[in-house]
Amino acid sequence: MELSIGIDIGGTNSPFGVVSAEGEVLAKGSIKTRNYKDPELFATDLAKEIKNALSAIKGDFTILGIGIGAPNGNHHQGTIEFAPNLPWKGVINLIALFQNHFKEPIFVTNDANAATIGEFIFGKAKGLKDFMVVTLGTGVGSGFVSNGELVYGHDSFAGELGHTIIVHDGRDCACGRKGCLETYASVTGLLRTAQIMLAKSSQKSMLRQIPTDQLSGKDIGDSAAKGDKLALEILDYTAKRLAFSLANAVAITSPEAIFLFGGMARAGDLLLGPLKRYFEDYLLYLYRGKVRIEISALTEQNAAVLGASALVWNEINKK
Amino acid sequence: MELSIGIDIGGTNSPFGVVSAEGEVLAKGSIKTRNYKDPELFATDLAKEIKNALSAIKGDFTILGIGIGAPNGNHHQGTIEFAPNLPWKGVINLIALFQNHFKEPIFVTNDANAATIGEFIFGKAKGLKDFMVVTLGTGVGSGFVSNGELVYGHDSFAGELGHTIIVHDGRDCACGRKGCLETYASVTGLLRTAQIMLAKSSQKSMLRQIPTDQLSGKDIGDSAAKGDKLALEILDYTAKRLAFSLANAVAITSPEAIFLFGGMARAGDLLLGPLKRYFEDYLLYLYRGKVRIEISALTEQNAAVLGASALVWNEINKK
Repeated sequence: MELSIGIDIGGTNSPFGVVSAEGEVLAKGSIKTRNYKDPELFATDLAKEIKNALSAIKGDFTILGIGIGAPNGNHHQGTIEFAPNLPWKGVINLIALFQNHFKEPIFVTNDANAATIGEFIFGKAKGLKDFMVVTLGTGVGSGFVSNGELVYGHDSFAGELGHTIIVHDGRDCACGRKGCLETYASVTGLLRTAQIMLAKSSQKSMLRQIPTDQLSGKDIGDSAAKGDKLALEILDYTAKRLAFSLANAVAITSPEAIFLFGGMARAGDLLLGPLKRYFEDYLLYLYRGKVRIEISALTEQNAAVLGASALVWNEINKK
Repeated sequence: MELSIGIDIGGTNSPFGVVSAEGEVLAKGSIKTRNYKDPELFATDLAKEIKNALSAIKGDFTILGIGIGAPNGNHHQGTIEFAPNLPWKGVINLIALFQNHFKEPIFVTNDANAATIGEFIFGKAKGLKDFMVVTLGTGVGSGFVSNGELVYGHDSFAGELGHTIIVHDGRDCACGRKGCLETYASVTGLLRTAQIMLAKSSQKSMLRQIPTDQLSGKDIGDSAAKGDKLALEILDYTAKRLAFSLANAVAITSPEAIFLFGGMARAGDLLLGPLKRYFEDYLLYLYRGKVRIEISALTEQNAAVLGASALVWNEINKK
């Protein structure tokens, strides 16, 4: 039996899984990233946990490799570079750290690319050659597959759709610029839109019963599902901004399909309905009716680990 | 000696060249596209001209294939689809038409992709794996190479950077939408900017001595070169719009370099100066100082034919 290990390094926890070629998780575990100021110690303890988990798997198996998804993960260098949400500063050489504990090949990429490869190997994008994945969580990430290969770009930082500017002089973004897609289409962006609309409009809304600083994406989705007009308008506005950006991206890579993942995608058809309408409106005539938009097949619980493990299967498939 | 044939199908003329692996044009010719209402007759006569040209080449040679660049050329299908500037309507199966006359493999793509492959095989992009080419002529075209391969996309219509929308509710575009990059950064867009600025400003300018309907891109470049302030402002505005679009495209494919080609590129440093400044300002911090912008190495006279012939070398290199 051939297996791969997927590790998802996050700001709080770093879960891992031992995954079969079919995407079955045979063993799993997690360590607390926050407890480790020293990345070397982190790697040592994580390796120990992984080896424990492996020893519990019954039957013969071979580990083909280790895939690591991490914020600002650089595929070409095998490093994490200046990730603001991790306890380690500067450039961390992940491959070097884990090679002290494993002899198998190690692959690194960022979270959104891992989600993309996960969709490619285990999800709805199986067999597609040209598609994109957009992750709509606290931020907006993306991954592009063209000619059957993930587009890493020259420095491994391709796929920053969340930081394409969609509104001149628009909302302040954490990146230091203004008007990035992320400030509109992330869950955080959705909440900013909600605040503005609640202030501007005098419409009745269930959302007014929730203190502004406790308002969540789920509240907006739930209210919209119950027919709350203002909540529907908030989703509509968000869908329109996202549609604009997706239509522009289509003109560059001409994908067959776009898969949405993450918190925002939980709104399902409440988001997809207006999104598809605006998307077709914004598209250049050449692409109209040709590009489908779907919610990802992966669940948020296991996507990161599956995606990281999929890196290994993807590299092996290339050979 | 191994050679390839490049054909550039244009609205007025269709020049061709017989090209060596080093990019030397050993024989060439041209027929008038406009004289042919029947594409079959067009192919027959063009094939005759090509065979004449081949018979004049001294020494032994093998023709490896035929590359055709054409407006709305579809690489996957080998067709031209609904090209507004050609005398033929609907979908024309170019490969079928030319297979009646040649047994060698035939490859089709659109003009901007041919220019991109030309830069890849014979120009400044030799050996690069991730770059983009932007053609700034009557319209704006583009081609993206990622992982060493041209991004054709699912339906072969990738690379329409000219039809990404950069201004909400902006200038009317021939595609039926508003605010496309093409309406600002093509030579036609430059002239629209000139008209608006000449009307809005009361500044003195050499450009005021030229009747509006005779104003050319060259006039603006020449006046700017002589220090005409308004002409410089027109180029500055154009550079800013283009820089915005290029910076957004970089966030998707993360290229190592961007090559500019076509009429606008003739302005040279007068365009490149402000373009590079605005580009760095607009870029996400991850990419700053990492992406160079240069004028293409190919000349407008031979780029289309070289680019078309390069399609053949590119397909052969893949094997």
